[in-house]
Amino acid sequence: MRTSIATVSLSGSLTEKLTAASRAGFDGVEIFENDLLASPLTPEEIRARCADLGLSVDLYQPMRDIEAVPADEFARGLRRARHKFEVMRRLGADTVLVCSSVHPLAVDDDALAAYHLRQLADLAQEFGLRVAYEALAWGRHVSTYDHAWRIVEAADHPALGTCLDSFHILSRGSDPKGIEDIPGEKIFFLQLADAPLLAMDVLQWSRHYRCFPGQGGFDVAGLVRHVLRTGYDGPLSLEVFNDVFRQAEAGPTAVDAHRSLLVLQETVGVATPPAPVVPTGIAFAELVTPDAEPVSAVLGALGFARTARHRSKPVDLWQQGEARILVNTSGAARRDGTGLAAIGLESPDPTGAARRAEALLAPVLPRRRAPEDAPLDAVAAPDGTELFFCATQRNELPNWRADFTDVAHRAGTPGVHGIDHLALTQPWHHFDEATLFHRSVLGLHAQESVDVADPYGLMRSRAVTNADESVRIALSVGAAPTDDTVHAQHIALTTDDVVAAARRFRAAGGRLLPIPANYYDDLAARYEFPDGELETYRELGILYDRDAHGEFRHCYTVTVGRVFFELAQRDGYRGYGAQNAPVRLAAQHAGRPVR
Amino acid sequence: MRTSIATVSLSGSLTEKLTAASRAGFDGVEIFENDLLASPLTPEEIRARCADLGLSVDLYQPMRDIEAVPADEFARGLRRARHKFEVMRRLGADTVLVCSSVHPLAVDDDALAAYHLRQLADLAQEFGLRVAYEALAWGRHVSTYDHAWRIVEAADHPALGTCLDSFHILSRGSDPKGIEDIPGEKIFFLQLADAPLLAMDVLQWSRHYRCFPGQGGFDVAGLVRHVLRTGYDGPLSLEVFNDVFRQAEAGPTAVDAHRSLLVLQETVGVATPPAPVVPTGIAFAELVTPDAEPVSAVLGALGFARTARHRSKPVDLWQQGEARILVNTSGAARRDGTGLAAIGLESPDPTGAARRAEALLAPVLPRRRAPEDAPLDAVAAPDGTELFFCATQRNELPNWRADFTDVAHRAGTPGVHGIDHLALTQPWHHFDEATLFHRSVLGLHAQESVDVADPYGLMRSRAVTNADESVRIALSVGAAPTDDTVHAQHIALTTDDVVAAARRFRAAGGRLLPIPANYYDDLAARYEFPDGELETYRELGILYDRDAHGEFRHCYTVTVGRVFFELAQRDGYRGYGAQNAPVRLAAQHAGRPVR
Repeated sequence: MRTSIATVSLSGSLTEKLTAASRAGFDGVEIFENDLLASPLTPEEIRARCADLGLSVDLYQPMRDIEAVPADEFARGLRRARHKFEVMRRLGADTVLVCSSVHPLAVDDDALAAYHLRQLADLAQEFGLRVAYEALAWGRHVSTYDHAWRIVEAADHPALGTCLDSFHILSRGSDPKGIEDIPGEKIFFLQLADAPLLAMDVLQWSRHYRCFPGQGGFDVAGLVRHVLRTGYDGPLSLEVFNDVFRQAEAGPTAVDAHRSLLVLQETVGVATPPAPVVPTGIAFAELVTPDAEPVSAVLGALGFARTARHRSKPVDLWQQGEARILVNTSGAARRDGTGLAAIGLESPDPTGAARRAEALLAPVLPRRRAPEDAPLDAVAAPDGTELFFCATQRNELPNWRADFTDVAHRAGTPGVHGIDHLALTQPWHHFDEATLFHRSVLGLHAQESVDVADPYGLMRSRAVTNADESVRIALSVGAAPTDDTVHAQHIALTTDDVVAAARRFRAAGGRLLPIPANYYDDLAARYEFPDGELETYRELGILYDRDAHGEFRHCYTVTVGRVFFELAQRDGYRGYGAQNAPVRLAAQHAGRPVR
Repeated sequence: MRTSIATVSLSGSLTEKLTAASRAGFDGVEIFENDLLASPLTPEEIRARCADLGLSVDLYQPMRDIEAVPADEFARGLRRARHKFEVMRRLGADTVLVCSSVHPLAVDDDALAAYHLRQLADLAQEFGLRVAYEALAWGRHVSTYDHAWRIVEAADHPALGTCLDSFHILSRGSDPKGIEDIPGEKIFFLQLADAPLLAMDVLQWSRHYRCFPGQGGFDVAGLVRHVLRTGYDGPLSLEVFNDVFRQAEAGPTAVDAHRSLLVLQETVGVATPPAPVVPTGIAFAELVTPDAEPVSAVLGALGFARTARHRSKPVDLWQQGEARILVNTSGAARRDGTGLAAIGLESPDPTGAARRAEALLAPVLPRRRAPEDAPLDAVAAPDGTELFFCATQRNELPNWRADFTDVAHRAGTPGVHGIDHLALTQPWHHFDEATLFHRSVLGLHAQESVDVADPYGLMRSRAVTNADESVRIALSVGAAPTDDTVHAQHIALTTDDVVAAARRFRAAGGRLLPIPANYYDDLAARYEFPDGELETYRELGILYDRDAHGEFRHCYTVTVGRVFFELAQRDGYRGYGAQNAPVRLAAQHAGRPVR
């Protein structure tokens, strides 16, 4: 199906918006009136720009307070409409959106509303245009889609149809099944938006909290299925008012938006992108650093051994059990020090995984490799993290490990046997985008979002996992763009005995994050521990949590550049220690150089 | 009365919070448990720190899910309480807050709740402590203050009283009159918070949107009056959970918070700071600049004449009618160019105005003047703007104008006769603080807050005025700390004929902000203008708005540094052209150097 997006959903000037929509692959746009008014381009120039960009102008919107108002108001409305129809002709837009009236003088009179809309449609017809009438959820007398349709039906004019908007329908809890009673050719337009399930004033909810389908709590796909059964053949168009998107760069927002429509089309069965290939494990995490020494010291103290080196690049493989960490000192290292740059995801079908990612608009990364290296499919996540789809030690597939040459090393007593999870702090503005990306591109499952109190602002955190939780990625976002926690990422390592692992780390010269004594007084108040256990935790800085599934013991290394490590002993526990995160964050702030 | 603040209301580490509370003048604090847990200081050290800072520890909070739970849960709760009471003894806190249970197994049984609270109070008494029981608005079975009080009354224990929280009471729409039925000595604590009137889930509302008294929509003062009639003699304590305050610097937030309590005490009649002295006009606006030429050129083109020069400082007075603009090239000029640094407010009693400001915690500015200069009382607004309280040409008072020596100038044909309003963009995080400051310190009236769509994010704007609107200040705040509109301020100048003033400005070489042609097509659609009028507006970039009181015509100069000017012809109109602000903002963005 054709896809479209309302310019109000994106930030910037009208031409920035159009460019971003085109680049992201949209077929058309809805021109939001205020964007036109604020543009220095004439309607003809905008029309030409859209044509150059391969965008059709699918809708001009909105026109307000037209119907069921006193006669003099209606006359003014019709005069206004004539001007706007002239602009639409210049713009090349053939359909105008009319929202149900919120005029204080509007009357509850469907016959009058139908009469006014018929007259408006007559005028539109003179201009070769169509009118799509939509019920606002907060319309004065018309606030449900079936009511709007009854008026359109009564008006019975070829240039008059209805516009359906998933937000207005689902926010009121209307049953979308009734959509199937509307003839498809009378549905002139379909606007889609999702929203988190908030109990709040619907106007505020609509104006500030809409999001793209799949990012909220509405069954947008279910609604679209009903619409498709009517034979509707117009575009799927996004109209999203959102305070975050208004500030975010238009380019990434448009990609996020278009991805949501691609996934929606897959869900309702009108598009078949390559099927998701769910990763089955974490092959490696790759750190880039301008200086390998500090991070190598931490890895060594954690029990990792440098087992191999890439045969053509300055990349070391550090390994311990199934935990593999690459340390890359090539030019990719950023000025701000050691960072987590890439994740190797174990994939049953690396090429298929990359095809899926590409179809869902993930940037495919060039294969920077020597001719003899294994071909590795890689894409970029929204936060810039490179995702490599790997097949480790499966004979039938190219193996990245074969590009590494073993180096002599002393096998230690491994205290760590895998990567428990990776925690990626997301750039501000792109948290919902990251969640949708990991769900749709990688086929991971998103858990509930939780608030975490950092001393300098609330953070949000949300984990995405595969079914057996052998892949766990915890996404989080800071409270504001300036928040200095934004760039800290971490690698949590699996251990069966966090106490032994922490002791060994410390004995090897590693520095653990110190945890305040008050935290342990609180643990003593909340739980009963065997004799001496709490003293051990206190000594080492081990944190404790418990859920319905089991217990969790974990501790943290100090931060190197923008990365730190966690030692995680998970005895059935399903969470990520969010309960302890405020204490950990405060300790990290306390450990920073005094300002 | 004594004043207190919950540490959760401020950002940072516990010691940062305590320091900020003490500096702002609070007498005590509520220690929020998580702040204690995350602190590296022992309870004894925190107690000593508070003593050093002159703060009493008025409350330890919160204790949860104690009452009306199954016996084994209660036993665990009592065990937990014993640990916490020990911590409180070390901390020097004598009262603990117990919130009504939200435990899934809690039963609706007041007798059991009373029995449990009595046992808890017995234990508290052993430690020399008191228990203050509070109804959470979302408590499982106890959610109103009168219900909580009935349980406390039934428990009938000297160490058990109730805690009242204005948010929990007013958010549910409970009538606070019933508070007077509670004996004052059984009200162990009073927590105060205001909130904007939002129709939303009460838990979310409470956790994210509370604000300080006078910043929201609740009648907090009315509630406090009821509490005072009971004979309550504990502190007035602020407990405010707010996403913005969590990110803002603790110091200014604490000042804002304490100011709100000072004003509240004045409102309820228990404190009498110096009475407000409402300004009666704008004496001058002062620009600082590293280079007087560009702004002088704009002022000259606007019809201002350089009429005088300060006798000892590099400050020029530009005047036209009653519009006076000082151009200051002293060291105060900031690196980022020309900016609005100070406002002279015409005051019937400059010294009284300054005394009021000082009593309400406005920083009093040192009088940087030569011995012969007129003494000018000045304070800093929260955004750093200096406010001078002036008496221009009133013989009985020192006159700032007398410090200026007239210079020869050619009197032009004045097109401007005063300052219509000053528009001050506020630093992020401090919008509500600015409103409260201007209301309480200057005695101005705050109008409704409006949203304004900038192409790169939503802004909020709110005007504060005196009764006859001879002083109008429009406060606005950008969408995010990084928003590049944050620093643009503007001076709106009154004219009786904006067309003539604009033409003269242009003829004198001034550059007006160009407004898109599409805007005028929209005006033509919405209004009927006499022949040729719209063409004139289009030619000059004049914007138009209309409200119930009259018409508004206005246009803008291009920006110099961080300041621009508006020419405003206000024919009865009461607003500030918010309808046109998106077009103006887009035009200003469009006029910036391409990135």
